[in-house]
This record gives sequence, structure tokens and C-alpha cells, in this order.
Amino acid sequence: MSTPADTAGRTPRIVRTAAELSAAIARAIEFNAPEQGTATLGLVPTMGALHSGHESLVSTARAHNDVLVVSIFVNELQFNDAQDFARYPRTLEADVEILARAGADIVFAPQASTVYPDGRPLIKIDSGELGSKFEGASRPGHFDGMLAVVAKLLHFAMPPATLGVPVSYRAYFGQKDAQQLVLINRMVADLNYPVEICSVPIIRSAEGLALSSRNQFLTAEQAKAALVIHRALSLVKERAERHEPLYLEDAAGLFEMEPLVELDYFELVDPRTLQELAFNCQDTPFTGEGLLLVAARVGEVRLIDNMPLGY
Amino acid sequence: MSTPADTAGRTPRIVRTAAELSAAIARAIEFNAPEQGTATLGLVPTMGALHSGHESLVSTARAHNDVLVVSIFVNELQFNDAQDFARYPRTLEADVEILARAGADIVFAPQASTVYPDGRPLIKIDSGELGSKFEGASRPGHFDGMLAVVAKLLHFAMPPATLGVPVSYRAYFGQKDAQQLVLINRMVADLNYPVEICSVPIIRSAEGLALSSRNQFLTAEQAKAALVIHRALSLVKERAERHEPLYLEDAAGLFEMEPLVELDYFELVDPRTLQELAFNCQDTPFTGEGLLLVAARVGEVRLIDNMPLGY
Repeated sequence: MSTPADTAGRTPRIVRTAAELSAAIARAIEFNAPEQGTATLGLVPTMGALHSGHESLVSTARAHNDVLVVSIFVNELQFNDAQDFARYPRTLEADVEILARAGADIVFAPQASTVYPDGRPLIKIDSGELGSKFEGASRPGHFDGMLAVVAKLLHFAMPPATLGVPVSYRAYFGQKDAQQLVLINRMVADLNYPVEICSVPIIRSAEGLALSSRNQFLTAEQAKAALVIHRALSLVKERAERHEPLYLEDAAGLFEMEPLVELDYFELVDPRTLQELAFNCQDTPFTGEGLLLVAARVGEVRLIDNMPLGY
Repeated sequence: MSTPADTAGRTPRIVRTAAELSAAIARAIEFNAPEQGTATLGLVPTMGALHSGHESLVSTARAHNDVLVVSIFVNELQFNDAQDFARYPRTLEADVEILARAGADIVFAPQASTVYPDGRPLIKIDSGELGSKFEGASRPGHFDGMLAVVAKLLHFAMPPATLGVPVSYRAYFGQKDAQQLVLINRMVADLNYPVEICSVPIIRSAEGLALSSRNQFLTAEQAKAALVIHRALSLVKERAERHEPLYLEDAAGLFEMEPLVELDYFELVDPRTLQELAFNCQDTPFTGEGLLLVAARVGEVRLIDNMPLGY
């Protein structure tokens, strides 16, 4: 098996089409597969504009797989705002440098015409109720568009059955987009995709701000104000760890002291179903498992964050 | 490569769960794969109640593949009428006999709890406009439910990547359900499923009635009246072959002479997009490609049929 030490620093192979990707995966597997047993192939789907959060995702996937594919595609379908899509950072050269350092073997950077050759798909993925709450409530169509491209990417990078080498297939997503991760796990289960979904924890700045490609749009003052998100999450987490009542409303109240930050939601949910765990908001000690979700606007920038509790 | 002569008459292996299916496919491929080159795996999804139409589908798939899986699952999600679901014929024993004769290697007959372990899927396939016209107009939700199960079955029977034998994968559908075939082709393209979709022509009774599991609900008198469907299709086809104007309304008029048969639609469409080709209904000679779609009610039974023109 390849280790980060073997491959880190080598420039990954950049491919643009589905056929190039399949051929590159086939060659990489033939080259890197163990002499006996099953090879492992990892996929990390991204929209580029890579930061240390992605680097951690890629490094984890690198350490666990013989062959590592990272896709970079800014998926118009998941932007409900055309301006947001237009100004989303496209930094392929810098991304490839980061991916070389993190040890990706293959970068799949398709054109829109490769992913959507006939324009918008006629057959759509409907994320249903799970995709219309929380982030879905303020970004109509976002999760349907996200699932549409993930449904494709999982097939694009699937180990070719014509290869003749036993391969086990995993795809990696960050825990920062918690609702996205729940939806992808649900889609993979509901459509029986032959892939294992893996996730890695949020990476934060030293001060606690969850890394995001959108943070670059924050002024220094806004970035400082945004730290209230982590303060509020941490406050609840500490209470959960001490098995105290969570007093969510009281933690949410911290946002009132930051006029630059407008809270959208601050909710404790079931980590698999996203059902609100209202009972934990009462003043009884917290038990069980929960996921604390938060979204807030800072100027024009929408930030999301979350904190797992009790596990 | 196995030929029908090798395997016909052997009782297929019946499996119930996804794990059993994968294991059976792995064993069958290891046993039947050619010494060199790529093995071929075919899947024929059915709802059972097999008739000669299915037998033709299975025989075609048998002749073209080293390993042949036939699935039998009455998919509640595609029935918009609970009564229709309840009375849909379930004839596993007879089906397996037919499949033994046709040479299937594996019969996948899952329980509903295997296909839908969590009840109805939360992430749905939305067949959109393509699925809401023609059959979709009178069967709301039918095509979404059909795609939901096909999306799963294509993954259930996919050659396991962990196998280590090169396999090429195909799935077979009959041309009788023309709109279903268009939708499945569209889903496979839109979601980039790594499978080749193959289709086989309609099988008809000697008198011309397209075979269907629903024909058994017709009285002899109704079955005779239903022959008007094929008469109307054939009339138009003959005109197309002579490069004459099609006069569709005039062919549709034949239904008025059969009081037992109530015409729903009789439309010429593009065979890939299902767009109505209205210009061909005018009195100019027919050129190009078209698909003539028809649906009619005979008593309680809804019958569909179609005829490709110009190819």
C-alpha cells in the first residue's frame, strides 16, 4: 500500500473527461495495488478553493487508500444564487499544489459539459424533507443540486468493473457540512451505491472559526465577530460533557452580543435523521447523542458550523 | 462463454438478500468467466408473472452474457393503486420454471424489507416532465417509483469491484414499456451509471396483442376487441413504410368502432425525448424516426402498446 511518504509532493495527474478518469484510475490501481488482497480507492469530491480543512480530508483519505482521486468541480446546480456561483473562487493551480503536497494521485477537474452534457439533468434527485430544512430552507434546491453531482461523481470514480483487480471503494466528506453528509449517507443507502462513505472532523482556525472557502470574504472585524459561533457551540458541548442541562436558548443568546452576526438557527438534532431533539433543550441533564447545528450571516457571508455531542 | 445450450434447464440459484446476490454473482462469474478477456453479466429486472415476452427478454440476455441474473420484485412504489398492487399476480414457482428453461443463473427475489429496509426512501428519484406525460399522466408517481427500484437493482446486481475479474455489465428491458425504457436510459445517462442498457422488441400473440401480465384479466371478448390496438398501429406503420402521410387521427378513429375499448392516447413522439411530433400528423409524407405510443382501457384493464416508425 502507498503511504503519504511515497507519494506526497508528486504532481497528481489531471484528467478532464470520464474516459480519462477511468483510464487513470485503472493505471493507478494496476501500479499501486497490493500484490495480494484488495486494493483501496478513495474519492474526495470538492469544489476547489482548497484550504487546510480540505487538506485534512485529503490527507486522511491518502493515508487509508492505495489510490486517491480528488475531484474539483464548481457545481452550478447546487448554487441557488447565480452571483454566489459566479464569485465562487476558482483556484485550480493553487489547488493542485495543495493536492500534490497532500499526495493525491489523480485530480478530476471536468468541464460542465462533461458533467452535464445535456444541460440540467431531466431525472433529478429529490432530497425531500431532509433537504428542505436548515440549510435547505434558505437555499432552495441546494441539496438536490448537490446530490445530483455526488450521484454522478460516485459513478465517475467507481473502480471500473472491467479492471480485473479487486478494489474496495470509499468516498470522503467533511463533517463541516453536516446536513450534506446526512443526505449523502441517506442517498447511498436509499440507492444502494456500492461505496463506503467516510467523514473527517471539522478543522478550525486557532481561534475556533471553522475553515471555509467563504471565510476569505470576511473582513478582519467580521472574522473576529464570527468566533461567537464557536463560543456558543463550545458552551453547550462543555455542559453536555458535564452531563448538565444544555440551556440552548441561553447559548444562542450569546449571538445577541455580536451585532455583526445574525443568527439563523441553533438547533440540537438527531445526527442521522436531523430530527430536532427538543427535549434536550429543556433543563434536564443531557444524555444520548446529538448534533448541534448552527448557521449565521456575517455581512454577505453565510457561515455554518456544528458540534457533535455525546459521542 | 456460456450458451443457452449449456445452461438451459438447470434450476437457477434463488437468492433473497443483497449479500447473497453479491456472493452468488461472484461465484457464477468465477465459474463462468472466460479464461481471458472480460466476462459479461446481464441483469433482467422483472416483477414476475413471467410470460413469453419476458422469456424472449431473458433468452436474449442469456445468449449475450456469461452470467445472467433475473430479479423478481413486485415494487409497491410504482403502483399508484393499492388494489392493483394487491392483485398483481405473484407466481414465483412458475416463474422459476420459465427461468430455468430460459437459462437464468441466478434469481434475485428479495423481500420488500431488503429493498426498502427503512420503508419508503427519503431520497427520491424525480422523473420530472418525462415521467408525468402519457402513462405518467394517468399513473401519478408510477415512474418515480419505477426509477427508485431500478436505481437500486442496478447497484444490487453490479459486478462487485472486489471480485478481481474483469466484467462488463448490462441490463435488459422490454420495448413494450417504451416510456419506462426512455426514462431508464435517461436516468443511467443523468446519473452516469456504469451499465449498458439493452432492449428487446415487443412479443405479440399470433393475433397481434402485445403480451402483458395484465392480459390474463381480459375476457375472451375483451381480448378480441383489444386487437384494434395493433390494427391501428399497423395501419400507421404501413403508411410510414410507403412514405405516405400518416393520418393519425384516421387510425385513431378505428377505436371508435370498438365500444369495449376506450382510447386514452395515440401519439407519435420522438423515440428519445418523447416530444410529440405533431408535424407528422399533418397530411405530408412521413420521414425520419418516430415512436407511435398508444394506451387504452379495456374494462378494468389498462393496456399499452407502441410501434417504432422509420427505423
